[in-house]
Amino acid sequence: MKIDPRHMDYRDAHHLLIGAIVPRPIAWVSTVGENGVFNLAPFSFYAGLSVKPAIVGFAVGSRRDGSPKDTLRNVLFRKDFVINVVNEALQDTMNTSATPFPPEVSEFEKAGLTPARADLVKAPLVAEAPVSMECQLRQILEFGEFPNQSSFIIGEVLLMHVKDGLLVNGAIDVAQLKAIGRLEGDNYCRTGDRFYMQMPRNSL
Amino acid sequence: MKIDPRHMDYRDAHHLLIGAIVPRPIAWVSTVGENGVFNLAPFSFYAGLSVKPAIVGFAVGSRRDGSPKDTLRNVLFRKDFVINVVNEALQDTMNTSATPFPPEVSEFEKAGLTPARADLVKAPLVAEAPVSMECQLRQILEFGEFPNQSSFIIGEVLLMHVKDGLLVNGAIDVAQLKAIGRLEGDNYCRTGDRFYMQMPRNSL
Repeated sequence: MKIDPRHMDYRDAHHLLIGAIVPRPIAWVSTVGENGVFNLAPFSFYAGLSVKPAIVGFAVGSRRDGSPKDTLRNVLFRKDFVINVVNEALQDTMNTSATPFPPEVSEFEKAGLTPARADLVKAPLVAEAPVSMECQLRQILEFGEFPNQSSFIIGEVLLMHVKDGLLVNGAIDVAQLKAIGRLEGDNYCRTGDRFYMQMPRNSL
Repeated sequence: MKIDPRHMDYRDAHHLLIGAIVPRPIAWVSTVGENGVFNLAPFSFYAGLSVKPAIVGFAVGSRRDGSPKDTLRNVLFRKDFVINVVNEALQDTMNTSATPFPPEVSEFEKAGLTPARADLVKAPLVAEAPVSMECQLRQILEFGEFPNQSSFIIGEVLLMHVKDGLLVNGAIDVAQLKAIGRLEGDNYCRTGDRFYMQMPRNSL
C-alpha cells in the first residue's frame, strides 16, 4: 500500500508518521517562562544529533489554533532548557504534565514534581528524574505553515545529571533505568524486553 | 552525579548519551552510490521533525578515521534516501548491514535482502521491510570536528509504503509491526511490552 503524506490532512499524516517511527524516546522538557513560571512538557520527536559536541533536538508542534506552546516561547526567551528522562515510576506525572495548562500554571505543581536548580542554565531540573541534561539553545529549524508549524529546537548538552548507582562502567544501566518509549497513538512501551546483538566491527 | 560531556572523549560521551536517549527508533537507510551500488545501514539518532510537511532526520557520524560513511556520500550525490523500518524478523539482516563494507559491496547482497525500485526516488526500498519511506534530501546540518564530525541529514517523506494488513484504521498496527529499538551499547528492546495512557486533551 502506498500513501503520499503530502496529500493527507495533518491529523491523518500524524497518525501515520508516529506509527512508522517507533519506539520513540521521550524528551521531558523543563523550561522557565518570562513570567518565572516553571514549565514541563513531553515531546517524542526527539533525537541526538551529534556526540561531540553533544547535540540534541526535539520538535514542538504548534497548538491546534496555531499559537506557540509555552515550551517554544520559553526556549526562545531564555535560550535554554533541560531534558529529563521518563521512567516507569514517572509515567503518570509525565502524562499530567502533557495537559495544556495556561502559561501561569506550573506543570511541576500540578504533577506534584520538584523543580531543582540547574548548575548552568535557568531552566529547572525535575528532581525526581533519573537523568537530566542541561541544554543551551543552538538553533531552531522551522517547518510547515499556520496552523501546523513545527519548531525543531536544537541544543548543546552542557551538563548531565545521573542518579547515584545508575552509572555502571561509565554507561547508564538500562535495566535500572526502566525508561519508557512512545509508540503509535497513545501507546507506550517499556524497555524491559531486551536483547543483545553485537554490532559487526570489521569488514567481512 | 554530574558529568560534563564537553570534557569527555568521543567514546565516553557516546556511551553516556546513548544511554540517556532511549529507546531509539532505527532508521534503516537505503541509498544508491555514484557507482550504482545499493547501500544499506542502520542509524538510531533519528526522529521526526515535522508532520506536515512530513520531515525526518537522522545523524551519520564519520568513520573512525574521520572519513565520511557511504550513506552520507550517497545522499550528497543522489539527494535522496529511503528509511525502512526494522522489525524482529529483520533484526539479523539489519545487523549484517551495519558491517563497514567497502563502497563497492552492497549490504543488500551480503544480508540476503531484496532491493525494490522506489516510485519517486533513486534509492531502493528494502522489499522485506514492513514500512518504507521514500525521502528527498532537504538539508544537512554539520556538527563537530575531524575525526568526529556528525551530519544530521534532513529529508521530506514523499511516499510511504506499508505492507498489506499492517494499516488498521489509518494507523500502523504496533502489535503486528513488532519494531525493535536501540538502547545503551549493543542492547535493543522489543515493543511487545506495551501500555496505553490517554494524553489529557483539555486544561484541568
